[in-house]
Amino acid sequence: MKMTCVEFKSGRRFVGRLPHGKDLITSIETFCKDSSIHMASFSLIGAVSSATFGSYDQKQQVYVTTTEKAHLEIVTCTGNVSLLDGNPVVNAHIVLGDKQGKITGGHLFSETVIFAGEIDLQELTGKPLERTYDDTTGLMLWRK
Amino acid sequence: MKMTCVEFKSGRRFVGRLPHGKDLITSIETFCKDSSIHMASFSLIGAVSSATFGSYDQKQQVYVTTTEKAHLEIVTCTGNVSLLDGNPVVNAHIVLGDKQGKITGGHLFSETVIFAGEIDLQELTGKPLERTYDDTTGLMLWRK
Amino acid sequence: MKMTCVEFKSGRRFVGRLPHGKDLITSIETFCKDSSIHMASFSLIGAVSSATFGSYDQKQQVYVTTTEKAHLEIVTCTGNVSLLDGNPVVNAHIVLGDKQGKITGGHLFSETVIFAGEIDLQELTGKPLERTYDDTTGLMLWRK
Repeated sequence: MKMTCVEFKSGRRFVGRLPHGKDLITSIETFCKDSSIHMASFSLIGAVSSATFGSYDQKQQVYVTTTEKAHLEIVTCTGNVSLLDGNPVVNAHIVLGDKQGKITGGHLFSETVIFAGEIDLQELTGKPLERTYDDTTGLMLWRK
Repeated sequence: MKMTCVEFKSGRRFVGRLPHGKDLITSIETFCKDSSIHMASFSLIGAVSSATFGSYDQKQQVYVTTTEKAHLEIVTCTGNVSLLDGNPVVNAHIVLGDKQGKITGGHLFSETVIFAGEIDLQELTGKPLERTYDDTTGLMLWRK
Repeated sequence: MKMTCVEFKSGRRFVGRLPHGKDLITSIETFCKDSSIHMASFSLIGAVSSATFGSYDQKQQVYVTTTEKAHLEIVTCTGNVSLLDGNPVVNAHIVLGDKQGKITGGHLFSETVIFAGEIDLQELTGKPLERTYDDTTGLMLWRK
């Protein structure tokens, strides 16, 4: 089995601020819906006042999640936007750091509350990828 | 409140080496000044011979910084360039790893001394974003 | 000494799935060879069923590597493709997270076995950068 990719064109490129006090995933998905973005790649940095993230249990096929009710830096967060049931959905992973430089993170979940953040989002045009259930992994992956 | 973005066009794309023994932020800012870059997004990997990074104390509104005088991998470093008082300034976050695979990091500060590094910097053209004091967070954020 | 960059044009942009059960670096290099990609930047997220990563000993000029035979999230992985002896080679760094949110990582090596993953790869066109031995660091860096 090989890497299976689809070629896209670069659409609009958006750079801006994430809203203080709001949920990270919801903010990005709302922006995409409002801007008719169906497919995108993004990267962001900033800080949160609380965060939820997880790691996938590959045997049990469930995410084990952690909520940190703490002020943390978003040391990095990269992800993509594609379609699930016709709606733009975010798949992103996040690395968080505390005041001692201790690092944690994983798959990004709601609720993760933004303190401040700066996003660079590249719209990708062409036929958007769609998520569907994948038997091998139990994850919602892009339809082949 | 919502995510507030500005649309940019992709300008020049630069890929290359970071200078051995020099400060990371200063190197990028000097390159941008020399190349008349006012707005950009970048990503880099490499190694440092010492690093300074911090985490923002959201209550006290000050950065708590740490200096590691150690040889560390730059496991990831993403950030942007925009204008402060008319000059290109870097805002970047860094993840660092040691020989035991132990990870640390946060908001990137000077002085962080490059051992080796490879950068991919995308110039963004359009009206560059400008940083100004933000009352809510105490940070220098992009003017709305 | 300054940051030394080469300007590239954006070529094709590929987004897609990484193959379950295969080696990460080999998968990307094979894709590049099959698609005649000589220079690229990429970012990916996902999960692995085992991973090998390292940190460079700047004095001894050797990589110290670690293999984790564990199911881990790829919290972030960024890198580039350029030429070594005429073939596309990957240089990438990886951040991994476990079910307790404990983070590890460093310079990516084979063998790192993909469980699932999503890659965004931007081809860069122009004269591709070539790797050659660098006396100062002992690393295979881009020829100046």
